[in-house]
Amino acid sequence: MDVVEVVPTPEQYAYTFGGVAPLRRVSPGTALRVWSDDAFGGALRSTADLCSEKVDLRFVNPQTGPFWVEGAEPGDTLALHFVAMEPARDFGASAAIPFFGGLTSTDRTATLQDPLPDTTWIYELDRAAGTVTFAARHTDLQIALPLEPMLGTVGVAPPGGEVRSSLVPERFGGNMDSPQMRPGTTCFLPVFVEGALFSVGDGHYRQGEGEACGTAVEGAMTSTFVVELVKAGAAAAPAWPRLEDDTHWMTVGSSRPLEDAWRIGQVELVRWFGELYGLHPMDAYQLLSQTVEVPIANVVDANYSAVVKVRKGLLPPATAFGGLHDDLRRRAAGLL
Amino acid sequence: MDVVEVVPTPEQYAYTFGGVAPLRRVSPGTALRVWSDDAFGGALRSTADLCSEKVDLRFVNPQTGPFWVEGAEPGDTLALHFVAMEPARDFGASAAIPFFGGLTSTDRTATLQDPLPDTTWIYELDRAAGTVTFAARHTDLQIALPLEPMLGTVGVAPPGGEVRSSLVPERFGGNMDSPQMRPGTTCFLPVFVEGALFSVGDGHYRQGEGEACGTAVEGAMTSTFVVELVKAGAAAAPAWPRLEDDTHWMTVGSSRPLEDAWRIGQVELVRWFGELYGLHPMDAYQLLSQTVEVPIANVVDANYSAVVKVRKGLLPPATAFGGLHDDLRRRAAGLL
Amino acid sequence: MDVVEVVPTPEQYAYTFGGVAPLRRVSPGTALRVWSDDAFGGALRSTADLCSEKVDLRFVNPQTGPFWVEGAEPGDTLALHFVAMEPARDFGASAAIPFFGGLTSTDRTATLQDPLPDTTWIYELDRAAGTVTFAARHTDLQIALPLEPMLGTVGVAPPGGEVRSSLVPERFGGNMDSPQMRPGTTCFLPVFVEGALFSVGDGHYRQGEGEACGTAVEGAMTSTFVVELVKAGAAAAPAWPRLEDDTHWMTVGSSRPLEDAWRIGQVELVRWFGELYGLHPMDAYQLLSQTVEVPIANVVDANYSAVVKVRKGLLPPATAFGGLHDDLRRRAAGLL
Amino acid sequence: MDVVEVVPTPEQYAYTFGGVAPLRRVSPGTALRVWSDDAFGGALRSTADLCSEKVDLRFVNPQTGPFWVEGAEPGDTLALHFVAMEPARDFGASAAIPFFGGLTSTDRTATLQDPLPDTTWIYELDRAAGTVTFAARHTDLQIALPLEPMLGTVGVAPPGGEVRSSLVPERFGGNMDSPQMRPGTTCFLPVFVEGALFSVGDGHYRQGEGEACGTAVEGAMTSTFVVELVKAGAAAAPAWPRLEDDTHWMTVGSSRPLEDAWRIGQVELVRWFGELYGLHPMDAYQLLSQTVEVPIANVVDANYSAVVKVRKGLLPPATAFGGLHDDLRRRAAGLL
Repeated sequence: MDVVEVVPTPEQYAYTFGGVAPLRRVSPGTALRVWSDDAFGGALRSTADLCSEKVDLRFVNPQTGPFWVEGAEPGDTLALHFVAMEPARDFGASAAIPFFGGLTSTDRTATLQDPLPDTTWIYELDRAAGTVTFAARHTDLQIALPLEPMLGTVGVAPPGGEVRSSLVPERFGGNMDSPQMRPGTTCFLPVFVEGALFSVGDGHYRQGEGEACGTAVEGAMTSTFVVELVKAGAAAAPAWPRLEDDTHWMTVGSSRPLEDAWRIGQVELVRWFGELYGLHPMDAYQLLSQTVEVPIANVVDANYSAVVKVRKGLLPPATAFGGLHDDLRRRAAGLL
Repeated sequence: MDVVEVVPTPEQYAYTFGGVAPLRRVSPGTALRVWSDDAFGGALRSTADLCSEKVDLRFVNPQTGPFWVEGAEPGDTLALHFVAMEPARDFGASAAIPFFGGLTSTDRTATLQDPLPDTTWIYELDRAAGTVTFAARHTDLQIALPLEPMLGTVGVAPPGGEVRSSLVPERFGGNMDSPQMRPGTTCFLPVFVEGALFSVGDGHYRQGEGEACGTAVEGAMTSTFVVELVKAGAAAAPAWPRLEDDTHWMTVGSSRPLEDAWRIGQVELVRWFGELYGLHPMDAYQLLSQTVEVPIANVVDANYSAVVKVRKGLLPPATAFGGLHDDLRRRAAGLL
Repeated sequence: MDVVEVVPTPEQYAYTFGGVAPLRRVSPGTALRVWSDDAFGGALRSTADLCSEKVDLRFVNPQTGPFWVEGAEPGDTLALHFVAMEPARDFGASAAIPFFGGLTSTDRTATLQDPLPDTTWIYELDRAAGTVTFAARHTDLQIALPLEPMLGTVGVAPPGGEVRSSLVPERFGGNMDSPQMRPGTTCFLPVFVEGALFSVGDGHYRQGEGEACGTAVEGAMTSTFVVELVKAGAAAAPAWPRLEDDTHWMTVGSSRPLEDAWRIGQVELVRWFGELYGLHPMDAYQLLSQTVEVPIANVVDANYSAVVKVRKGLLPPATAFGGLHDDLRRRAAGLL
Repeated sequence: MDVVEVVPTPEQYAYTFGGVAPLRRVSPGTALRVWSDDAFGGALRSTADLCSEKVDLRFVNPQTGPFWVEGAEPGDTLALHFVAMEPARDFGASAAIPFFGGLTSTDRTATLQDPLPDTTWIYELDRAAGTVTFAARHTDLQIALPLEPMLGTVGVAPPGGEVRSSLVPERFGGNMDSPQMRPGTTCFLPVFVEGALFSVGDGHYRQGEGEACGTAVEGAMTSTFVVELVKAGAAAAPAWPRLEDDTHWMTVGSSRPLEDAWRIGQVELVRWFGELYGLHPMDAYQLLSQTVEVPIANVVDANYSAVVKVRKGLLPPATAFGGLHDDLRRRAAGLL
């Protein structure tokens, strides 16, 4: 399988899902190797670089894309199978942006308090050791943490003619900020517009669940993935993003308050278990109540995101979307 | 170390935290082996037993206790180290209680819709295999799931003279419904009243994160644990429950909406990391943003609960409460 | 009608609903003239008195009561008809308590920000003019505002053996903080325990809807009201507090998040309209959708409270609880 | 003053804020008389017309517009002063749309319950009496209710290149669904894009606060209003919509959960009071805590909306935006 390289110029960065002309057309089955800039557009390179001076929240999470998928129509399912994610710089950056994040008031959870101090952290990457190093700003503590690359933002154009900021996670995917979006994972997204118009970005060299301060170890990333399309006739499209890897069935709900994000993910997994195992919704509800893991994805974006997942090993064998994930794993093996 | 056996009669069950006379006095250092009834008080024994007929939500989660801890005073920290949890019956029960649970309207998220059908599931226990078996009610699917015993409810008497239902999780612990409350875990709770007056109950043979339908595989349990007390002079009491096991530092926040439960847990862990590593709050905020796991505990109780935890292996060595967890692990080894 | 005067000593103040021995027994039909201290127990008397030094949030809203109502049993409805509320001091106090209120992070909506400055405002009362005067602390602006006395806190003992802080509003009433609780209003509360055990307190000389900063113009109050009891056989008890005055049918829901408080109030009013007009729930839902007013009561307490009300003048004549409100209005006229 | 008539064809309806080419250019100072279709695009004309068959939620609230305002630039403030709203049909329609509304589970507050029955109500208009008549579907009750026309939806193009459904209220205004948007009110909106690109629609012949079932008495409307522009140099643009009428200062916050909508409105009014009265934020916080009314606008849209308002009569005289509201009132008088 050939791999198509895509490296956008800054002028080509997209800051929305929807509303942007396609960067490139791709056929289902294509493997892409895509460079994406970090959430800050590379603006934070030392601890002296502050968000209040260098970052405009209307233009963060620059997307590489959108890609027009040949033949994609509303009702189809787009599948993106992630093969590799390689840090494209030797450092990652994180920041406590004033009035942004989970442990501060924000433009929505609005209070009269002063903001937290605008602070930047730089994480040096050690490729040989496979680590990024946290360096405290107020003491000398340094901690090398495992490099665990992921993409914060994977999404298609929204339904109903909407155009949404690349800060937003929703039913179209988007800024879900889940550590599950990593090599080995297949992401299934509903197609809402002709061509699907998907994009990726917001690489994280690592991230805790919840992304508490609002930013991960943000870094430019080179991501390799295979694009596939499941036509509406072959399988019903999911209502919300679904993920599959070798060990888990997963859904992602995004809304506010956080319990609604969870409810969405849980109901979507009930639906999926109806398809996978022929379970009545009440039985799926019960089985999931005893088996799911719920690692929160983010509590900081315009919508919050919750992942709901079940370990495949607990369950009888089943296949989704015609066994596409296993097929993509095999195809991906040839790319590494 | 001797082990004190406690098996209450049904008349001795407590249904609140606070407001109940002590069942027994224990000295710090005591090991207890405590029987607790299941959340339904044993009322559900076949799929024909329905909650609408047999369960009164004002009197569920019967507690064994409260225990008066000799010498415990407000400002101290109670430590309970769980050594073993053994199912005390050969089956567990779960149910979709009308207008109770996460994927239904409730008395709070009130709608005009009809309730979901009142449904009971019975899980047979296979002690040799270490499994409980899900049996679908609408199809023939049966799935043996690993037995993973835990306690839904561990708490002390609340502050300010309040008395709370054993359905409630709060800063005093209570019905947190986290799978982390299992053998090997030490639970640290703030002491609010003289004697601490803790109780335990709501055994689960297993539970998914979030406890979506509102009930786990509910089962009577025999729990062995060691009681310890950290005096105020030796360490500051936590503001909210903290858990420690061999692999993780954990906090539990409980509130509504779910993001507030998460905020509470996250801020409590920021505080704890200040104590453990001398970190400035902003540095702890940043470090935790890149390292925590956030397995949701419940989205169904009077308050929702979120666990925030960090893998110890990611961090430099540290000890909390004078190394009490390690000490209790050693002492517990003699009990098995 | 005789009026029974009740002035408690500070030792008799109650700080919880439930869990307190009766202050006095009253028969249905009794008129009471009750003195209650302000929310701060009188601790703030000048702008130099700060909450961080003088107020313990576990012991605020001192209640006068509880009163044991002769013959009251679970399932009955307690009716309190308010006749008069007279300021019992010549000033009211308000404060921005650190980490308490609606436009600050709190112990639940927990952030890492600094608190707002602990600030106290004193409102001088002009009885002749019927005003309390706002005096800005940072400029010279003074504004005389109409005196509009109300009681923040009216409640009975909770169900299920719970005991709740006088800071909490819930189905038992409590700290609802609604300006609707004023002279001319009849408050209907479900009786959960023998004797009902109601209490009142938290007088406000005036309050905006939402009680944004967490405190109203707090003042000691002398409240005159008539106590009545509707036996279960005569009318079904409300599930949540209902209010009636000459112009409106009203319900009060209390929960978190705020939409759940609203849902509760709205569903309770759908139920009430079923009783008043024989309306099918869907028709009541529709009619209320076009007619209700929803003045938010508080967004600052342990639960938030929303009032849902409809102007009687929009609707055909109807009577609730056997026309008790009109009857109490007539009886009250003799007291003034 | 001349009045420009605008009646769009159905092909010209806009279903989003942003993303649509201008329908017409207008100069500041222009008076417009604009016809807008009802929320359902006129699809519900009898109780036999059901939303599940005739309404697509992606295409409701058809907007008349957008209008390009000559000279409007980001940072400016758009002022729309409403002079008259006349029902353009002889009936209004309302409906309980499946899985849409406040007392049902939805696509966000997702549950496994069945939907409420899809039901339509038709309200006959009596122009002479000034009423619309509620007719119960399950009994014979009919109630004539006062005609109180308002517009649910008034908004400009969003910032950051977003395009939002006409179901959404946000900082750009949009589907706020507040009864305050009526003749006599001036609405001040921040301008985010060149030309402002405002539109109006979603006429309501009357609506209760909260719009509980998700739909008001929906009706085609002819709205007369004057367009004005306040340049950035003359006054700072509001962060969120502000309303002014002869009696009240008002702000509208929109978000989820509902308390965040309230927080936004409250903070915006604190800011406005800083401008109007030179008040320190803490003093404005205090003054508003004792004076605001908080009529909830909607608890059913993609974001919830809360109005926060203060009666001008309680306060010293002040003028906003150079006294524009009073000026527009005078100009409007010439139109009636």
